Amino acid sequence: MSALEIQHRDPGTLARAGVLRTPHGEIRTPAFVPLATKATVKSLLPHEVAELGYDMVLGNTFHLFLDPGHERIRRFRGLHEFMGWRAPIITDSGGFQVFSMGHGTVADEVKGRAPMGQERMGKILAIEEDGVAFRSYLNGETLFMGPETSMEIQGALGSDIALVFDECTPFNVTREYTQRSTERTHRWLDRCLAWHDARGPEGQLVYGISQGGVHEDLRVESTQAVASRPVDGIAIGGSLGADKPQMYEVVSWATAAIADDPRPRHLLGIGEVDDLIRGVELGIDTFDCAMPTRLGRHGVAVVNDPERRWRVDLTAGRFKDSDEPLLEGCPCPACALGYTRGYLRYLVHARELTGQRLLTLHNLAYLSRLMQRLRAAIAEGTLAATAAALRAGELP
Amino acid sequence: MSALEIQHRDPGTLARAGVLRTPHGEIRTPAFVPLATKATVKSLLPHEVAELGYDMVLGNTFHLFLDPGHERIRRFRGLHEFMGWRAPIITDSGGFQVFSMGHGTVADEVKGRAPMGQERMGKILAIEEDGVAFRSYLNGETLFMGPETSMEIQGALGSDIALVFDECTPFNVTREYTQRSTERTHRWLDRCLAWHDARGPEGQLVYGISQGGVHEDLRVESTQAVASRPVDGIAIGGSLGADKPQMYEVVSWATAAIADDPRPRHLLGIGEVDDLIRGVELGIDTFDCAMPTRLGRHGVAVVNDPERRWRVDLTAGRFKDSDEPLLEGCPCPACALGYTRGYLRYLVHARELTGQRLLTLHNLAYLSRLMQRLRAAIAEGTLAATAAALRAGELP
Repeated sequence: MSALEIQHRDPGTLARAGVLRTPHGEIRTPAFVPLATKATVKSLLPHEVAELGYDMVLGNTFHLFLDPGHERIRRFRGLHEFMGWRAPIITDSGGFQVFSMGHGTVADEVKGRAPMGQERMGKILAIEEDGVAFRSYLNGETLFMGPETSMEIQGALGSDIALVFDECTPFNVTREYTQRSTERTHRWLDRCLAWHDARGPEGQLVYGISQGGVHEDLRVESTQAVASRPVDGIAIGGSLGADKPQMYEVVSWATAAIADDPRPRHLLGIGEVDDLIRGVELGIDTFDCAMPTRLGRHGVAVVNDPERRWRVDLTAGRFKDSDEPLLEGCPCPACALGYTRGYLRYLVHARELTGQRLLTLHNLAYLSRLMQRLRAAIAEGTLAATAAALRAGELP
Repeated sequence: MSALEIQHRDPGTLARAGVLRTPHGEIRTPAFVPLATKATVKSLLPHEVAELGYDMVLGNTFHLFLDPGHERIRRFRGLHEFMGWRAPIITDSGGFQVFSMGHGTVADEVKGRAPMGQERMGKILAIEEDGVAFRSYLNGETLFMGPETSMEIQGALGSDIALVFDECTPFNVTREYTQRSTERTHRWLDRCLAWHDARGPEGQLVYGISQGGVHEDLRVESTQAVASRPVDGIAIGGSLGADKPQMYEVVSWATAAIADDPRPRHLLGIGEVDDLIRGVELGIDTFDCAMPTRLGRHGVAVVNDPERRWRVDLTAGRFKDSDEPLLEGCPCPACALGYTRGYLRYLVHARELTGQRLLTLHNLAYLSRLMQRLRAAIAEGTLAATAAALRAGELP
């Protein structure tokens, strides 16, 4: 039985709305999932994240493996207790971060983003059938991560949803490389499922990951290969193309290949406003992305401005004297407390933690309301009109 | 009439409890005043500061003069509106920061502290009878601050309590230097009062500042000289000695010299737990200090440990596996949410904003409760026993 109860379907698209059930509670879908990379949504406390309307956060297997270590988190009775978030947690597999070390700026390249706030990265020492040896970016220690390691770490973290270990293939490689890599990802998928069957924590859901790059046949094959296994859900990962039209196309190949599959679908690392709208139409149930939190820490706010990718960069000097709010009618603390763009600009320019925090709250509030509107529209049968309004920058 | 209504006096000491009235509301005294140096209590929102039990914050004239500029804050209808804190604000005069540039690490030396988190500092170009020319640490611009400038800035900020511009004389100077400097501070005091009389904002209180260093006669003379003017309160500033016993002695000379004066007394830049207890006994009504907020951002928490200056440094490796709370029974979010020292250690070690914030909240919660106990003890006539218990590290 699928963990996702689909309650409403949009007649014109693959969009669906429902409830995803996990050991630590339910997620209203479609949903955006904020990052709690290092056991915290940066600058926020758990109840603040919940009050913004979020049901689930994403923990980072790779970073938590390096520090404080999954065995330590196990001793603290798992990630939920450790970080005080007692609602659902999804953990990525670590594959994306491990392979980002080898592929340089793949994190940005894959998602078609400009580099921003990159972390110091370690170095891949060897990619073999068993997994990847790499050097820790924290202390130079030689570490290893393979399918079993990843599942063991996620088991120790005790997440509600674990993602299998995959090679996140970059955009700028040959079709042959993508094909070989995707086949290995499928072998790793089976090893992950075998490990989880034998030793995974009770109730933890496991999602497979569709790879195949931007090649339609490979992407469809990979998606079907993943769906043919007893996975609890299907995530879409790897290279999604060079631009947004290509990304939507790649995602559409994947979801069309499993259009009738009732299991939940997660789109990895995607979270811009237009991408969320389109992703929902393409049948995605959950999304995660660093965008709202990372942009917030760098002084960029999400606003109703489709012409400028829904962004306003408050570090710009022209806001020094602005007494406008970020977004009229927004219920986030930055707007509800009456803060001006001038004040927020001052705070982010002075690198004040309060500024980073206010923009993080605002950006997450925006995406939460966006998803809430999309869920309601699917339920009410008004998705086409709602999506058009949201795309036009109307989020009342 | 004094802005301070003294409601209770301790029979055994100079301690007193009451209510300090300002244009933006009342402050329950004795009180600790958290720093809102750059128009925010770092990492906190105004309602969080109020919920911790604080009635007033301290804004920094020097930093706000440099960025965003007092004229800009005036256009935003003053500091209260700009930062969304609609309760009392006290602003320092800028003298301490201006003179710290000339005297190097005077900020630490004066307070007998080890250097920590020092800011890049500009440079004094000239100290003259009119004031001080200096170079901005932000952009190298040549700026000037004198008594009238300081009062004008504080007028534009619209603080409830302004401090007069003084030379903060360091510890390591001759008696002659201290004397000359103190005399100039008194001339500046008169110029500040004259400017404020003519052009200061309605209702803004003005405190004079006692200097005189660690010389009993100079300190007493200076305190009396300040008290002889029509100031609304008396702040104690400058060098207070090389160690705590000397600091207490210097403060006691000052407050003894004005023992019967009903006007409020502020002790500048002092806020360690034992100093607050002793300061209250010596008749101080309000204190400000960077300690709780700055230490919090550096991973140090205030706890019931008099042997270690009421501090625990969570960056220490020994807390990696600690499942102890910071402080049993503490109502702050870090303790009330059940966070372990191990988790907090992880956050501060990973430089996570959430960790800085949780320790800021905890440290401010500790000092707020400390002051609340002292106020209650004075009202109930139990100060001696309460002070002894608090000194023994008992904050139930």
